[in-house]
Amino acid sequence: MNSQARARLKRIAESTVRRLSLYLRFLEDFEQRGLETISSDELARRGGTTSAQVRKDLSFFGSFGKRGLGYSVPELTTRIREIMGLAQTWRVIIVGAGKIGAALAQYGGFFQRGFHITAVYDNSPNKIGKPWDSHVIRDVRFLERDTAAERPDIAVLTVPAEAAQATLDRIVKAGIKAVLNFAPVQLQAPPDVTVRSVNMAMELEGLSFALINRDQPG
Amino acid sequence: MNSQARARLKRIAESTVRRLSLYLRFLEDFEQRGLETISSDELARRGGTTSAQVRKDLSFFGSFGKRGLGYSVPELTTRIREIMGLAQTWRVIIVGAGKIGAALAQYGGFFQRGFHITAVYDNSPNKIGKPWDSHVIRDVRFLERDTAAERPDIAVLTVPAEAAQATLDRIVKAGIKAVLNFAPVQLQAPPDVTVRSVNMAMELEGLSFALINRDQPG
Repeated sequence: MNSQARARLKRIAESTVRRLSLYLRFLEDFEQRGLETISSDELARRGGTTSAQVRKDLSFFGSFGKRGLGYSVPELTTRIREIMGLAQTWRVIIVGAGKIGAALAQYGGFFQRGFHITAVYDNSPNKIGKPWDSHVIRDVRFLERDTAAERPDIAVLTVPAEAAQATLDRIVKAGIKAVLNFAPVQLQAPPDVTVRSVNMAMELEGLSFALINRDQPG
Repeated sequence: MNSQARARLKRIAESTVRRLSLYLRFLEDFEQRGLETISSDELARRGGTTSAQVRKDLSFFGSFGKRGLGYSVPELTTRIREIMGLAQTWRVIIVGAGKIGAALAQYGGFFQRGFHITAVYDNSPNKIGKPWDSHVIRDVRFLERDTAAERPDIAVLTVPAEAAQATLDRIVKAGIKAVLNFAPVQLQAPPDVTVRSVNMAMELEGLSFALINRDQPG
């Protein structure tokens, strides 16, 4: 990819990337059902958006589809997987072998698309050395040493809130450029590191706030 | 609360509500450690924001704190819990007794703050009637009947993507006004229903996209 194309990709909004994830799910569903083509209308309907939006999203990445024939399902699937970086395997480490980490590993769905757990860390003497899924929990002391040797791509951060920033700083310093954070805290990272946060308790609290502040009937 | 105050609350941004969740966590941590007061500086530092932002967030809800003395930890904790609707218990149903639902129930943290699971539903004959945490999985056929009788407040939607919109429509029609969605699809709901979505696979895919499209060294 030339630098101009790369600069264009960098401007693509997070919302576009989310829609690409959605389209990919529908395409894979279509592929499983043996369907050959899909229209922008159908992708839009499934994704809760407009066919103009679908065409705009896909136009970022070049020319797809033939007027009146729709998109070829296998071609578009392959192309979106390439665009999303899902045609390759990413090495994922989990830092914090607590309940969330365990829930993640149990929910195989998270790690279907080329996300492969390569190591799990904790700082608790009660956990280090214990089996965890198909791994043995490692001492977080060795995070830097292991990262230099094994070059993981993504860190899933599931440590307590008060330890999250310091742990993230270590992950960043070790050279990892992508972090999925489950700690209920806003983290600071350099601009070349991408941090995404998931906080289910906060989503529930947001619902609680919405419920208690909604208009009362009558 | 009068209607003017309520109208003001409705304008509060989702980002403010998220920060209130964060402040509450820090306050509870302070309370456990027996600390009496907290400054806006300390809240800001922990939350990765500015003390001006903290004061602005809290000013929405009236006057707190004394200049130079900071906020009273127990008072501010109680007040934020009230504002967030966390001083009461919310009845939560889980629709879809799959892996995500199970991970949720196992991760007790989600349901600490007054979120109480009252029922779990599925449509699979292999699951209906089976034990699930402290519940027995119910037939989703009875969703409307049960909801009329038991008046749950929040539905956690963990059905497959292709069933999500139809299931949400049933939940909405049954009168539930708040939904936490785990299906990887954008859902349409009426304006008086609040839907929040969590999709960890998509967060990972967003990281994959960021990794593959970042500037190459050199």
